[in-house]
Amino acid sequence: MRQSQLFTKTRKEAPKDEVAISAQLLTRAGFVHKDLAGAYTYLPLGQRVLDKIVSVIREEMVAIGGQEVTLSILQDPELWKKTDRWDDARLDVWFKSKLKNDQDVGLATTNEESIAAMMTDHIDSYRDLPRYVFQIQKKFRNELRARSGLLRAREFLMKDLYSFSKNDAELDIFYEQAKDAYHEIFRRVGLDDDTFLTFASGGTFSKYSHEFQTVCPAGEDTIYLSRAKNIAINKEVYTDQVLTELGLKKSELEEVSAIEVGNIFKLGTKYSEPLGLTFLDEQGKRRPVVMGSYGIGPGRVMATVVEKFHDEHGMIWPESIAPFRVHLLALKMDDREVKSQADELSATLQQKGIETLYDDRDVSAGTKFAEADLIGIPWRVVVSAKTLTKKKVEVKHRMTGQTEDLTPAAWLKRLSA
Amino acid sequence: MRQSQLFTKTRKEAPKDEVAISAQLLTRAGFVHKDLAGAYTYLPLGQRVLDKIVSVIREEMVAIGGQEVTLSILQDPELWKKTDRWDDARLDVWFKSKLKNDQDVGLATTNEESIAAMMTDHIDSYRDLPRYVFQIQKKFRNELRARSGLLRAREFLMKDLYSFSKNDAELDIFYEQAKDAYHEIFRRVGLDDDTFLTFASGGTFSKYSHEFQTVCPAGEDTIYLSRAKNIAINKEVYTDQVLTELGLKKSELEEVSAIEVGNIFKLGTKYSEPLGLTFLDEQGKRRPVVMGSYGIGPGRVMATVVEKFHDEHGMIWPESIAPFRVHLLALKMDDREVKSQADELSATLQQKGIETLYDDRDVSAGTKFAEADLIGIPWRVVVSAKTLTKKKVEVKHRMTGQTEDLTPAAWLKRLSA
Repeated sequence: MRQSQLFTKTRKEAPKDEVAISAQLLTRAGFVHKDLAGAYTYLPLGQRVLDKIVSVIREEMVAIGGQEVTLSILQDPELWKKTDRWDDARLDVWFKSKLKNDQDVGLATTNEESIAAMMTDHIDSYRDLPRYVFQIQKKFRNELRARSGLLRAREFLMKDLYSFSKNDAELDIFYEQAKDAYHEIFRRVGLDDDTFLTFASGGTFSKYSHEFQTVCPAGEDTIYLSRAKNIAINKEVYTDQVLTELGLKKSELEEVSAIEVGNIFKLGTKYSEPLGLTFLDEQGKRRPVVMGSYGIGPGRVMATVVEKFHDEHGMIWPESIAPFRVHLLALKMDDREVKSQADELSATLQQKGIETLYDDRDVSAGTKFAEADLIGIPWRVVVSAKTLTKKKVEVKHRMTGQTEDLTPAAWLKRLSA
Repeated sequence: MRQSQLFTKTRKEAPKDEVAISAQLLTRAGFVHKDLAGAYTYLPLGQRVLDKIVSVIREEMVAIGGQEVTLSILQDPELWKKTDRWDDARLDVWFKSKLKNDQDVGLATTNEESIAAMMTDHIDSYRDLPRYVFQIQKKFRNELRARSGLLRAREFLMKDLYSFSKNDAELDIFYEQAKDAYHEIFRRVGLDDDTFLTFASGGTFSKYSHEFQTVCPAGEDTIYLSRAKNIAINKEVYTDQVLTELGLKKSELEEVSAIEVGNIFKLGTKYSEPLGLTFLDEQGKRRPVVMGSYGIGPGRVMATVVEKFHDEHGMIWPESIAPFRVHLLALKMDDREVKSQADELSATLQQKGIETLYDDRDVSAGTKFAEADLIGIPWRVVVSAKTLTKKKVEVKHRMTGQTEDLTPAAWLKRLSA
């Protein structure tokens, strides 16, 4: 894409009301726009990153048997009354509204109730189980405060998968597969080194839930971490009893701040019982379906990647989710030779299917360099009068900072390697 | 995909509360699930159709220079007060809610206000124009009645593109390109033969807007159509004066019901002026940006295709947006030979990248045939003891109803042609 066509502009100063470094950088670089506290527009560069994160998540959910749907955002209160979660005293993040006939509706904070109700049409026998159903869609949570930018939004994209099993043993098998899939997702987006399976509070039907927590100063959660054992405990369940159960000692755990990037939960029959989601087992006996839920917020993942990978100049995207793979900078577009070589290289990259942002604008070299660092595309390639005399291009790798002069052919070969 | 894995079930009876044939068939075939009046879950088969329609629309919007974003659904009332559209007396389809601090928020019915406000960060000079920005996202309209299924939903997916131009002449150029892109979209999804550019009411800044109306008995609109001249007039502007202006005679127009599948609108400076979206022109004078808006609802397109293409047995999908291209039916999976040939054919289709729903279930031939007709995948291919003796498969084309016995190789060749 030609940067002269990209409609967004960067800005030098971060908005004063943004505390989180991720929100500051994403706003400055024109990836997002704050519409109101906790609600962000994704602009083209941010949309591209989000789409890539979503693709990774979708692929891994399909790989473990997930079938994609899109559930309604508008929620029928009757379903939530059955599970006693309609009352604001029970669930305090509702956005509620009314139909014209004065009937209440809510905006989905999560979808256990509506998917359990919907599945009653499609599950009747043990032969219909197990099933795994997911969606990637916006959720709404009326947070009292929304100060962490995209890390805790009121309106946000979420992948939520729900599993439906015959019994606990069948749920356990999938739960372990989901854990592996989550690790694979965080590996692919570049977060796995600092992301840990974390024991968190369970519910009526399970002692613990599991979070995936990424160690990061900006995190709102506190966890107790053993890097050696690759495990952590959320502060909310950090007790002597839990330590004993998990075979951990206080001395081997460090207290760190972390961002919850994923959450998986054994729901048991908490939702299926009140909503009447049952099946006939092999003995002809009707039993409630055993459920699990598995969430990841792609926007929060994006913000977490920025929190982890940036420097004083800007963001540093992993190749897997970068908005473009290559940022091609032509210094002085009015130099005919420069324009000609840059155009040619741009055409070659397009032909090879290498996603490129081509800075063809008539602005100073300093502006181009500063914006390239801010936007943080993995490979910055400069074509200028200076590089032309050497018959090379200047290649800078944003992550390592390493700069080299290479012939276009040598660099393209390296890119394809 | 193996049908034994697909979690949805079909049903013989349509829900009693669905009037529209599209909602009846889509529900019976397990494409959608009604959560409440006007809010539908898209189930895997429906999701696949929707995804394909969305892909077609996205491709055509990118082809005319559209850049994709996702705007917030939560709306800041302050923006809408500036254009006098916050009051329910002015815009009567709002869903409104409140933040915890009692501040009002609305759910986006459309996005002129918020996109104009956002673009003030990115448009400052004539050099920044023209720009074309689109999103594909849910909208909410609190309709008094929602009786037409997916044809008039309260929560629905919409592609809305907004154009930003220096002046009317520049807007006019893009407006014509958008018209062409819309015709191309309707051609690709199979609706173009019966879809007509229709003059409809304009606003302060333009005499007319243009709708794309698909002739269909289920339509809620009435239009006056000249097939010969490939043009129509919406009843709302059907006056002698308009007829004269458009050079049309009453005698050459037929009155028909139609579904509005798209709408394009010259907004002029109606939104840019109150929201302060201006630019410095070549003479250094600050002027308001000239806007246009361009909408299509993918869910309504899907329902319209069903209204147009169905018979007494079920739906008939055009190949371009069918959930799968091939429905492979193995009759008697307990016949080892049948299973073996069907598995082999399924593997071949998968290898060739031909999307196939493989009915590998242990149900009667009658059930399989009935469901295949209901779901309406373009090519039905039967492997049975009978076809095996002929060393052929039975191929039925859903649209034409033509049935033939062909060798697998001959049929695959035809599919690839």
